[in-house]
Amino acid sequence: MKKFFTISIFPQLIEGLKETGIIKQAIKKGLISIENINPRDFTTDKHKTVDDVVYGGGPGMLLKPEPIFKAYESILEKGYKPYVLITEPWGRRFNQEFAKELSKKDEILIICGRYEGVDERVKTIVDEEVSIGDFILSGGEPAAVVIIDAVSRLVPGVVGDEDSLKVDSFSDNLLGYPNYTRPAEYKNMKVPEILLSGHHELIKKWRRWKQLEKTYKKRPDLLEKTNLSKEDLKMLEFIKKGKTFEDIYKKGT
Amino acid sequence: MKKFFTISIFPQLIEGLKETGIIKQAIKKGLISIENINPRDFTTDKHKTVDDVVYGGGPGMLLKPEPIFKAYESILEKGYKPYVLITEPWGRRFNQEFAKELSKKDEILIICGRYEGVDERVKTIVDEEVSIGDFILSGGEPAAVVIIDAVSRLVPGVVGDEDSLKVDSFSDNLLGYPNYTRPAEYKNMKVPEILLSGHHELIKKWRRWKQLEKTYKKRPDLLEKTNLSKEDLKMLEFIKKGKTFEDIYKKGT
Repeated sequence: MKKFFTISIFPQLIEGLKETGIIKQAIKKGLISIENINPRDFTTDKHKTVDDVVYGGGPGMLLKPEPIFKAYESILEKGYKPYVLITEPWGRRFNQEFAKELSKKDEILIICGRYEGVDERVKTIVDEEVSIGDFILSGGEPAAVVIIDAVSRLVPGVVGDEDSLKVDSFSDNLLGYPNYTRPAEYKNMKVPEILLSGHHELIKKWRRWKQLEKTYKKRPDLLEKTNLSKEDLKMLEFIKKGKTFEDIYKKGT
Repeated sequence: MKKFFTISIFPQLIEGLKETGIIKQAIKKGLISIENINPRDFTTDKHKTVDDVVYGGGPGMLLKPEPIFKAYESILEKGYKPYVLITEPWGRRFNQEFAKELSKKDEILIICGRYEGVDERVKTIVDEEVSIGDFILSGGEPAAVVIIDAVSRLVPGVVGDEDSLKVDSFSDNLLGYPNYTRPAEYKNMKVPEILLSGHHELIKKWRRWKQLEKTYKKRPDLLEKTNLSKEDLKMLEFIKKGKTFEDIYKKGT
């Protein structure tokens, strides 16, 4: 079982994640577990103080070192040796590759900063600083939720239909094709005819065309990271010339 | 008041966000509101079906168009005209600039996909596709939580101490300096002497040096996006030569 720990004074988001979709199922199946340790439980004063003013002056409050160290030590005392992440704007950018690496660790701990951040000395227990993007969050919790969700999906058995993983965007670096479900017509908008045709080979080609087309238009950088087949390259050439799928394939079949 | 709407069949994460830190405070103060609309409430069959198989075949399930359209229309019927986002891997990358743009909209709706995604026709009500990063999530909810958190911080009054906003990383493109709080010594780790010195001018210089140093080492790309002062550039020159702050400043004061 893959174990996720968080150290957070606001466990509500983590608790919310545990009730959501495939994460909830994965916990129920015993494939993963998610446990928050609240630094507040390791304070010794009656106000359960977890923060204090910044040395040298400055606005805002900082998470104190002791309650975080003690929360961490409570995990070690249970016999776990988690790989420790902390969210920082300058951390290594979280992406699917990083998620794959993390999916190979048995135990992961994410320390969630709040206020102006954490006391710098907490960094001595951190294996890696991680950032999910160039934006400012009020704490590490939303980032932790993102990381746990993305990594959990890669734990075998968590995503029910194994095929589902394969067709996900980015798993082969290309963007996804458009998908439709019933009804075939809604508010005068019709599902593309070809998807109702039953021509499986042609549908496969159409989807690949749409993937290549969308990737070419929206994220051309991803094309260079993908092993494209001869047919892919041929399609791409047509797409670059402004041809449509129907121009090339439909009439011929 | 800034209104956030989400359309999600798993409202637990959104509800968790509403109980967290400054978001909870901001809601209490009436500065923002967050409301999830559940497409399940707009189904007509007794199983409250929100998903269906993919036209043309393929693994997984897709969110049906009607319940989402109806959820959207319920928002319009209340007189709101939200700016509509949907999370997609190929969407515009969410960053602080994007957050600032969104902070100027009165009402924002984030449609959260699940399973293999949403029926493509839902895109006709979407103003912008957004991606928070190059990783695969099991749904739009973790991304929605990130977006709402980052945008809420920019609503005036949400971050208590206005100064706190100013020193946040990325607000001036440079990474933050290390922060320390009490105790001055913990587990043999001491707070840098200078922060205890009371020399405010020197502390200011030290912090700027640390910001420049960290940015230079970890995210040099950000230096080019920042308006650096003459003194910044001088510090940066020393940093590039491997000098420490103490080499340059400490002895002279």
